[in-house]
Amino acid sequence: MVLGELVFVGLGLHDEKGISLKGLEEAKTADFVFLEVYTSFMPCLSLESFERFIGKGVIVVSRKQLEDENGEIVLEAAGRGKAVLLVPGDPLIATTHVALRLEAEKRGIKTRLVHGASIISAVVGLCGLHNYKFGKSVTVPFPENFSETPYLVLAQNKGLGLHTLCLLDIDAERNRFLTVREALETFLKIEAKRRLGVVDKETLAVGVARAGSPNPTVKAGLVKMLMDYDFGGPPYSLVFPGKLHFMEAEALIAFAGAPSSVRRLME
Amino acid sequence: MVLGELVFVGLGLHDEKGISLKGLEEAKTADFVFLEVYTSFMPCLSLESFERFIGKGVIVVSRKQLEDENGEIVLEAAGRGKAVLLVPGDPLIATTHVALRLEAEKRGIKTRLVHGASIISAVVGLCGLHNYKFGKSVTVPFPENFSETPYLVLAQNKGLGLHTLCLLDIDAERNRFLTVREALETFLKIEAKRRLGVVDKETLAVGVARAGSPNPTVKAGLVKMLMDYDFGGPPYSLVFPGKLHFMEAEALIAFAGAPSSVRRLME
Repeated sequence: MVLGELVFVGLGLHDEKGISLKGLEEAKTADFVFLEVYTSFMPCLSLESFERFIGKGVIVVSRKQLEDENGEIVLEAAGRGKAVLLVPGDPLIATTHVALRLEAEKRGIKTRLVHGASIISAVVGLCGLHNYKFGKSVTVPFPENFSETPYLVLAQNKGLGLHTLCLLDIDAERNRFLTVREALETFLKIEAKRRLGVVDKETLAVGVARAGSPNPTVKAGLVKMLMDYDFGGPPYSLVFPGKLHFMEAEALIAFAGAPSSVRRLME
Repeated sequence: MVLGELVFVGLGLHDEKGISLKGLEEAKTADFVFLEVYTSFMPCLSLESFERFIGKGVIVVSRKQLEDENGEIVLEAAGRGKAVLLVPGDPLIATTHVALRLEAEKRGIKTRLVHGASIISAVVGLCGLHNYKFGKSVTVPFPENFSETPYLVLAQNKGLGLHTLCLLDIDAERNRFLTVREALETFLKIEAKRRLGVVDKETLAVGVARAGSPNPTVKAGLVKMLMDYDFGGPPYSLVFPGKLHFMEAEALIAFAGAPSSVRRLME
């Protein structure tokens, strides 16, 4: 029996031009091209324009198809030929993709990854902070999925002098996005209860909107100021800096309009 | 005075086809295109082929030009027109790029970033580990730049149950690369002195070679086994898993050939 293969291709950030040249080649030479856009949000992705690039149709798969139905539609195609699954950002950062890859390998289908730009390193670069000074990252959920985890992760990282990257939750299928203000409210609410002294209205943070777009918003300031700041459209991320290197402080001032008092966080 | 702009464009991983479509467009429409390939190593990058893609010549800049001479050659061009600086991986993850961007902004030159795939998220995806379970990452230096930092970072992350990503040092200009074996020897040497019980020959680790290439090597195993494993060509990375989720253990077995005893690390 001749088995096909499943290639996970990262779309990168923001729109259909975030894909790499090698990712595009994989899609062009595939027998079946699938796309999921619910594990992350690409504000300006045009399916039509992407289909023109590759000269063939793309099948959009839903969360239901990938999770409840275990990606059967993708696996079935990958059993018969070369299937490409296009995913936002860098592939296999989302757990769903790991589950699908495991199932493919179990069925004897070969798998490969073609990487794309990820929100994780994009936010680091946009802020000008040093990557090796970030601790554990965390997702801040919607208020109805309330969890103290983001606060506890922030407390742990702060205790170690490390930066914290917070991805803000999205529900791409419902076009809903947790805002910087909502995320900050979540932290303040938990602080009021736990009182570990991790975050208050005078804490420095950096909000990032539309990383990977031609006009991302990157704004550093005190929490009270960021809560009323207009970040424009989604998606959003939030960084709480830990101790700063001299160059990191200068970068936050120059690239993110941080107040000069940010220098007080220097090691 | 009309000022130009400086666009940092990430080349992604491995070769000239790791760049995004938008990155390629930026290079095509630039007045000056510069390239640095010393902050990371792209094994199969063909300058000739890239110049064909964009229909113009590319000026390779050295570490000396970017660091000792503060990137004057790039800044001077960016003051007169649109300059693109092509960099391996995702831009501004390297400190040199942050310094250059700071200097550009100080001179009134507008700067922008076009992101690319980064080794940081690529290794996470290749191993099938969960990104939010990684702690601080660290670079393991060449033996002559010996430092206990990698060991202390590993100790801290292990204490918190977190995974540790170790980038292994490169000297691209001298074509020299720290191997997985050399990195493991460094850890064992420090363990013999510090005796924190962080790593020994029975510790599980994952070695990764040539992330982003069509044939990366991803091998999980005990340290004693990885020390004699043939990873093929550079560059190399190393991951020390912390506590594992069920799906992470399965991923290490399926994608990295981990022994089934890896399930003992499950939370």
